[in-house]
Amino acid sequence: MEKKFSQWKKQSLNKLDQSKKGSVDRDIEHVVSLLNSCEEYFTTSSCSGRTILIDGASQSSDVQKQNCVWLFVSHQKCTFDDLMSGLARSSGDAVLKFEPFVLHVQCRRLEDAQLMHSVAINSGFRNSGLTVGKTGKIITAVRSTHGLEVPLSHEGKLLVEHEYVRFLTQIANQKMEENLRRIDRFYENLQSALLTEKLQKLQIPEPPSSHELQDPPHILEGEKVLEEEEEGKEERKKSNVYKRRRKREQHQTDCCHGDGDNSMTELDDCLSLFT
Amino acid sequence: MEKKFSQWKKQSLNKLDQSKKGSVDRDIEHVVSLLNSCEEYFTTSSCSGRTILIDGASQSSDVQKQNCVWLFVSHQKCTFDDLMSGLARSSGDAVLKFEPFVLHVQCRRLEDAQLMHSVAINSGFRNSGLTVGKTGKIITAVRSTHGLEVPLSHEGKLLVEHEYVRFLTQIANQKMEENLRRIDRFYENLQSALLTEKLQKLQIPEPPSSHELQDPPHILEGEKVLEEEEEGKEERKKSNVYKRRRKREQHQTDCCHGDGDNSMTELDDCLSLFT
Repeated sequence: MEKKFSQWKKQSLNKLDQSKKGSVDRDIEHVVSLLNSCEEYFTTSSCSGRTILIDGASQSSDVQKQNCVWLFVSHQKCTFDDLMSGLARSSGDAVLKFEPFVLHVQCRRLEDAQLMHSVAINSGFRNSGLTVGKTGKIITAVRSTHGLEVPLSHEGKLLVEHEYVRFLTQIANQKMEENLRRIDRFYENLQSALLTEKLQKLQIPEPPSSHELQDPPHILEGEKVLEEEEEGKEERKKSNVYKRRRKREQHQTDCCHGDGDNSMTELDDCLSLFT
Repeated sequence: MEKKFSQWKKQSLNKLDQSKKGSVDRDIEHVVSLLNSCEEYFTTSSCSGRTILIDGASQSSDVQKQNCVWLFVSHQKCTFDDLMSGLARSSGDAVLKFEPFVLHVQCRRLEDAQLMHSVAINSGFRNSGLTVGKTGKIITAVRSTHGLEVPLSHEGKLLVEHEYVRFLTQIANQKMEENLRRIDRFYENLQSALLTEKLQKLQIPEPPSSHELQDPPHILEGEKVLEEEEEGKEERKKSNVYKRRRKREQHQTDCCHGDGDNSMTELDDCLSLFT
């Protein structure tokens, strides 16, 4: 497995970047470099976050949805004129979207993916999750909740006043700023988490958490004491997350069946307004 | 572990529903019942999808974001009057959101979570992912991409024309319809996937995939032949997903570094317009 992961990493890093741009977005170069410098990780895709204006077909069938035109894309702040000149070229249904930072990280072992997931959640990327493939590929997707999706024209006709587009420009740029703050938080949390892991490995050749992968049933069925130790560590590591989650419980149990824990991510309406 | 999962399931199903509503949303009762009738699964939270109008504070600090008011919530289609009467009560920054179906499913074993994840992706819930806890809790979150997030008022002042609100009502209702179609698709795919699993178990006491949990390194390091068999099964099971992904590649490599595989979920702008 170790060998296989290294092969995957080598292949991936040597492979031509398949994006049109062909390179990593400037604002996350340091994050991608840090991850690719770790033997436990490599990135397979990323976007630092962007404001986009798409001109879609007026109907909603899958076929037509693919016939969309990009009127405007920016990974930095945008201006009122950027959006207006894009909208001027709309002939279908134009939609303004803000898409936050997204990152896919392939991880050597499940515990590495768990660490990445914990850092992501801790940094406010609450739609993050793991994918575990049959062939052993383990990927953590670092995802935020969507930020903005505003229909602006129908069959080429602008549906709103210019002042509203000016207001949206501010909102989109506020979201871009918040997005960059979250990327910084993620980078800092990642650095400290990786350092903690390294120190633990130096002190303890086989830290308890590493058993989980070498012998999952051991941890999964493990003695209560060991589990409590694990939970204790986890609690300390994720204290910020849990604090945030407790806060959120006041807002997100509005209408949906839930145990007030796992529903946090998507049902947190108030807090997701600006994420 | 088996015993522990059963205990968790028993505790969860006996626990009082912590949502204000206190019950599962009508449109997904059959999905939740099906999952809770399986020994491998139980649901910990869910929402069938909703159109909400939230009055947030005018600034974006976390503190203020929590002081938001719910002006309108509906799990069914909404009307122009619903939204207008909600907006009439706005004193801050009102935002209209459509939030699609979300479901959290605790799974007995990793392979059960992988099956759930595969069904979710296959049904169009492309932001789905796993969470693997230190104590052995394995949860698959079934998530779609956000559907709509439209700022409508600032400091209580409506920013758009009534006609635009009428247009948004149609869009929100179209998204609700599409959401229900996806729930149906998820339910059908889930039924057939569970049936296939049951049949496999009847025919083969120890199907290859079940080794993965009893002895992960075996599959992860397993002979090429076994891996190819596994991959073959996976390919067949997920053929629709891969077809969809291939389609998407034309659209989503616009600006971001990626290997054209894992970036599918978030970078698919055209196809996500109506999801």
